[in-house]
Amino acid sequence: MKLRLVIAYDGTAFQGFQSQSHGRTVQDTLEVVFGRIVGQRVIIHGSGRTDAGVHAIGQTVHFELTQEQVSRLRRLEEPGRWLAALNAWLPPTLRVLRVMRASKNFHARFSASGKIYRYDLWHAAVLPPHLHQRAWHLYGKLDHELIRQLCALIEGAHDFRGFCANSGSLPAETVRTLHRVRLRVKGPSLTITLEGDGFLYRMVRMLVGAMVRVAQGKESMESFKRRLADGKPWPTPAMAPAEGLYLVKAVYGKKRP
Amino acid sequence: MKLRLVIAYDGTAFQGFQSQSHGRTVQDTLEVVFGRIVGQRVIIHGSGRTDAGVHAIGQTVHFELTQEQVSRLRRLEEPGRWLAALNAWLPPTLRVLRVMRASKNFHARFSASGKIYRYDLWHAAVLPPHLHQRAWHLYGKLDHELIRQLCALIEGAHDFRGFCANSGSLPAETVRTLHRVRLRVKGPSLTITLEGDGFLYRMVRMLVGAMVRVAQGKESMESFKRRLADGKPWPTPAMAPAEGLYLVKAVYGKKRP
Repeated sequence: MKLRLVIAYDGTAFQGFQSQSHGRTVQDTLEVVFGRIVGQRVIIHGSGRTDAGVHAIGQTVHFELTQEQVSRLRRLEEPGRWLAALNAWLPPTLRVLRVMRASKNFHARFSASGKIYRYDLWHAAVLPPHLHQRAWHLYGKLDHELIRQLCALIEGAHDFRGFCANSGSLPAETVRTLHRVRLRVKGPSLTITLEGDGFLYRMVRMLVGAMVRVAQGKESMESFKRRLADGKPWPTPAMAPAEGLYLVKAVYGKKRP
Repeated sequence: MKLRLVIAYDGTAFQGFQSQSHGRTVQDTLEVVFGRIVGQRVIIHGSGRTDAGVHAIGQTVHFELTQEQVSRLRRLEEPGRWLAALNAWLPPTLRVLRVMRASKNFHARFSASGKIYRYDLWHAAVLPPHLHQRAWHLYGKLDHELIRQLCALIEGAHDFRGFCANSGSLPAETVRTLHRVRLRVKGPSLTITLEGDGFLYRMVRMLVGAMVRVAQGKESMESFKRRLADGKPWPTPAMAPAEGLYLVKAVYGKKRP
């Protein structure tokens, strides 16, 4: 039986999504709790990794149980029962929001047709204490209109190798399509939402970091356009910090998220 | 010279507002930083205490500098300069939002004509990780309409001794006027805002705890009305947890906040 879960986590409580030897990751935490419930090791597959400090509002993961495990766990046959069982064991910084039965062919990573990310900025002299580690605090010159223009500029299909942190070994294909990139401003709060068919390693943080440098007047619009066209990163790549980034959701089933 | 500050803090990072021997309170943290800047002990006065875990969006404090201290700190003569100096030394969970010069007679506590509190509830099966320690998580029966009726009921002047945690020594006067009490519902999020001329010890948490018990069907509306009329607390006082409570602001200068 395959189950699909939508989970959310506070990125500051974990050393990223993917399993590591020290065990303080989202995947490790989930696998320990699953192991306790199932009585055997269960492998969790996520829609993708998130860096340490990056938050998730709607990450998708899946896992598979053998027929033998299912028959031993009859009380959990109903997917909804998993919700209470998992949340009872998981820390409050990691929550299961939904549990659904998935088809045999479903894979959290390979079935995803796209993802939505959000990046939160706070543009004012003081960052309120409740936004500590939840937004990128910026003060001083920041041209919102330039950010808006850059959002429009990066929409569509581009080779984003200039905004990828894998300096050594780039993936074979570095063209990605951003279906929709929007800036929402509400007082000192700026939110950039990016919907795309896929994202390179640290691509959102590299893009937002570069957009902010242009908005601060530290790089020109032309220089940003060149970087997007020729794929050569700036000498100072200026990646936006992890704490402002939220994985909003992984999209399945539709061509466009 | 007297200065008046508006500060905000994440209540989970402190053992309450008021100074204690262990020093992990808001007042102690402020006094240490002031002491470092001024070079001498400075006493901070707050508009009132908040319990451990209670948040503040807009707490007001004041302090006074001697003429000798002022002349030594000429670079800080401009109140605005204090903002940067203080925030540079304070932890990110405690921020100074505004600094103003105050009149000789101003006192953060005694000049306040009222206060505004907010209590956040989350009514759903799962509490999102980003609301952990920032809202009271409730699940199951909860009649919103009853909460709305209770909000209207407690508006006005009442003797709130039945909703005060000082069981031993009540203050001389236990009548308080709530100018405005409102419930705002937005999906699973419920926010109760209370504006009043003053609040007894833990009065908001006692009121919200009692309102929730009625909304859950564990106490009757009649029983709540009796408690408000005769001042006798229930055998199970059921105080709402600190984590959902926010001091929104202390009000000065106007008769009504």
